[in-house]
Amino acid sequence: MTAEIICVGTEILLGNIVNTNAAYLSERLASLGISVFFETTVGDNPKRVEEVIRQGLKRSDILILSGGLGPTKDDLTKEIAAKACGQELVEDAEALRRLKEYFAATKRPMTENNLKQALVPENCTVLYNDNGTAPGMVIHEKNGKEVILLPGPPSELIPMFHLQAEPILKKLGSEALFSKVVKIDCMGESAVETEILDLIENQSNPTVAPYAKLGEVHLRVTANANTEEEAEKLVEPMVKELRKRFGHKIYTEKEDVTLEEVLVEALDRKKYTIAAAESCTAGMFVGRLVNVPGASNVLNESFITYSNEAKMKYLGVREETLKEFGAVSEETARQMAEGVAKAAKADVGVGITGLAGPGGETKEKKAGLVYIGVTVGQKTKVQKCQLRGNRQKVREVAVSKAMTMVRLALEEE
Amino acid sequence: MTAEIICVGTEILLGNIVNTNAAYLSERLASLGISVFFETTVGDNPKRVEEVIRQGLKRSDILILSGGLGPTKDDLTKEIAAKACGQELVEDAEALRRLKEYFAATKRPMTENNLKQALVPENCTVLYNDNGTAPGMVIHEKNGKEVILLPGPPSELIPMFHLQAEPILKKLGSEALFSKVVKIDCMGESAVETEILDLIENQSNPTVAPYAKLGEVHLRVTANANTEEEAEKLVEPMVKELRKRFGHKIYTEKEDVTLEEVLVEALDRKKYTIAAAESCTAGMFVGRLVNVPGASNVLNESFITYSNEAKMKYLGVREETLKEFGAVSEETARQMAEGVAKAAKADVGVGITGLAGPGGETKEKKAGLVYIGVTVGQKTKVQKCQLRGNRQKVREVAVSKAMTMVRLALEEE
Repeated sequence: MTAEIICVGTEILLGNIVNTNAAYLSERLASLGISVFFETTVGDNPKRVEEVIRQGLKRSDILILSGGLGPTKDDLTKEIAAKACGQELVEDAEALRRLKEYFAATKRPMTENNLKQALVPENCTVLYNDNGTAPGMVIHEKNGKEVILLPGPPSELIPMFHLQAEPILKKLGSEALFSKVVKIDCMGESAVETEILDLIENQSNPTVAPYAKLGEVHLRVTANANTEEEAEKLVEPMVKELRKRFGHKIYTEKEDVTLEEVLVEALDRKKYTIAAAESCTAGMFVGRLVNVPGASNVLNESFITYSNEAKMKYLGVREETLKEFGAVSEETARQMAEGVAKAAKADVGVGITGLAGPGGETKEKKAGLVYIGVTVGQKTKVQKCQLRGNRQKVREVAVSKAMTMVRLALEEE
Repeated sequence: MTAEIICVGTEILLGNIVNTNAAYLSERLASLGISVFFETTVGDNPKRVEEVIRQGLKRSDILILSGGLGPTKDDLTKEIAAKACGQELVEDAEALRRLKEYFAATKRPMTENNLKQALVPENCTVLYNDNGTAPGMVIHEKNGKEVILLPGPPSELIPMFHLQAEPILKKLGSEALFSKVVKIDCMGESAVETEILDLIENQSNPTVAPYAKLGEVHLRVTANANTEEEAEKLVEPMVKELRKRFGHKIYTEKEDVTLEEVLVEALDRKKYTIAAAESCTAGMFVGRLVNVPGASNVLNESFITYSNEAKMKYLGVREETLKEFGAVSEETARQMAEGVAKAAKADVGVGITGLAGPGGETKEKKAGLVYIGVTVGQKTKVQKCQLRGNRQKVREVAVSKAMTMVRLALEEE
C-alpha cells in the first residue's frame, strides 16, 4: 500500500512555518508499513490543489491532505477533494451539533461562514475534532482509494490522525501491523547501525529501522501478519535481540516517553533530588528536565555558574583547581558536581563545563570540549566529550549526554 | 518568475528528519520576489526523481533541488537532472582539485566513489562547497530554465544558496530586488497585522509580509526596480513608516540579529551584568541568553529556584509573601527579581514564576499564568501574562516576554 502526503497552505510555501506535519505523518505511516513515495506542498490555489490531488489519485492508494479545512474563503481543500472524487457535499448532523456546542461553550457568536465546516462529502467517515472546530474525514473514493483530510494545526492533526485515522488505515491493509520502538541514548547513529548491520540487511519481517534524534537513536521494529497479535509475536524476538545487544543503552521501550521523563521517574522512585551547576549549558539541562510536569518532586534548586567566581562562591570549586587546570577541566567538573550536591543538599549533583565556541580555543582545548561530572551518593564520575557542531548543537548534545550519565549512574547504584 | 523546490531523500519520506531546507529556501525565494507554487519531496528512487524533475521543468522557470549529491550509490540527483536537461557529465578541474585538497587536509584516504563528485553537467555554473565535499551547481537548461542543485545538509545548503545561488537568481530576474526586515518582539501577529492592514492591502511595490516567529513578528519589506539601489530607495520610506508605527516595539532591523543578541549588546554597552531567578522556566531564559558567544561579558551567575525554600534562601523572598500571595504572584516575581540582582550583585535582575501546567491550577490561577519581574537599578516592573499553549510553549513564550521586558527597561533607563 502506498500513500502520498499533500500539505495545503501558502504559509508553508512562503517559508512562514516549517512543515512538521509532513515529518510526523511520514514517521507514523512508516510505522504502519505504508510506503510514502511523494510529499507535495501546494498553496491555497484551487487549480493547483486539484492538479496535485488528481495526480495523487493516479499514482497512490491513499492520499493524506493537511490544511485548508477552516471556515475562511481560502479554506478549499474539502471542496476540491470532494470534486476530484466526484462527490457532493452534504451536512453532517453530528458535525453541526459539535460546531454549535463549541461556539456556545466559548461564548463566541458563530458567524455564517463557520457553517461550511459541518459539510462533508457524501461517502466518507467523519473524524470529529476534539481540539478545534474543523472536522477531518476519510473520503471513500469510487475506485477504492482513500482520501484523508486533516486540519493543519499540529495540535489538531496529531491526535486526530493517531486516534482516529490510524485505526482505519490499519484495517485497510490486508495484513495487520505491529511496531515497537527501542530508544537508545548513548550511541551515535552509525555506531548503532554497525551493531545491527546483519539485522538490517537480512530483514524482511520484522524490519528494523533506525531514526536519529538529538543525542539519541530510536530503533523501530515493525512486523506484519494476519492479526495484530501474530505481528506482535514476530516483533518480540527482535526486540529481545536488541535488548541483548544494547542492554542498558536502551533507556525506554515506550513510544511517548522521553529521556527526561525516565530521569525524573528514576529519581522520584528513589526519592532523590537532583541539582545542577551549569556553565556552558547555562540552564539548558534543568530547563529540559522541567519539561516533565512532575519535576518539582525531584528538583528544588540549581545554579548557573558562568564565571569562575560563581563556581567558587556557590560550589566551592577551589581557586587552585581553576588556576592549574582551568574552568574547562575534569577537576572543575568534578568539584562542580560534588559542590552543587552539597550546596543544594541534593542526592544527585551534575556539573557541566565546556567550550561551546566560537572563540576561546587554545592548543589543547578546542571548541566542543565539554566535561560533565555526575555525583550520586559518594561516587563521582566525569566524562570528557569532544562534541561537533555549532555553539547551539554542542550545548544541546552536552545536555543529552549529561542526562544519559545521570540515568546510568542511578541504574548502577 | 516561478520556482519549484524539490527535496530528494528517503530519510525525509520516512519522517527521519524534518525538512527545514524547504522552509529556508521558501523564505529566501519569497524575499527575492520569486513565487513558489509547489514543493515536492521524493525518495532516492531514479524513476520517481526523474518524473518530478520533468514535471517541474514543464510548469516552473526555476527548479531548486536539495540532496542526493554525495558519493554513495544512492546519490543520483545530479545524474538524473543532467539527463532530464539533456546534458552529459564532464569532469570539473577545480572541483577535483578541491576534492583532493579536502581529503589531504583531513588525512583520510579518498575512495574511488568520491571522484564522481567532481563531475558536472556540460552547461552549468559550479557552486563550490566550502563546508563539505559535494559541489552544487546551476544547470542552464536549453529552454532557458535553470536547475539548481544543492547539497542536503543545511550547514552546506544554507551558505551555498545564500552566497552563491542568490546572486545568480537576482541576475535572472529582469528587475533588481531589495528587501529589509523589521523585527518586532512585543506584539502578536494579528495585532501587528491590524496596525498595517492598509499597507498590506494597498501594496504593490514595495510589499510588506508578516512572518510569525516564536514570540516575535518579522515584517519583510520588498521592492523591485531596475537597479538594486532604486529598489532600496523604494523600501526606505516603507521602513520609515513601520518605524513610525511600531517605534520601540522594533528590536532590530538587521537580518541575522536575534533578540538575545540585542540584549547582550545593550547590557555590554552599559557595562551591566544580568542575573536571573527562574522558577517555571527553570534555566531557559539564561540558556537562551548564552546562545550569544559574548554572554560571559554580562553574565556571571544565575539561580534556578524551583522550590519555595530556594526562593527564600537565595533570593530573600519573604515567607509571608509566599503564604499570602503564593509563589505565582506579582509580589513573588518582584522579590525574585530584586533578590537575584542583590545576591548576584548584578545591575539587572529577572524573576520568572508561573504555572506552566498541566495540573496545579486553582480557580484564580490557570495554567499559563506567568509573572515576570525585571529590576534595573532601583526600578522594578512586574508583568502578568496569561499565556496559551502546552507546557513547553508557555515556558518558551515566557522567556521571550522576559527578554522584551529587559530590552525595554534598558531603553527606558
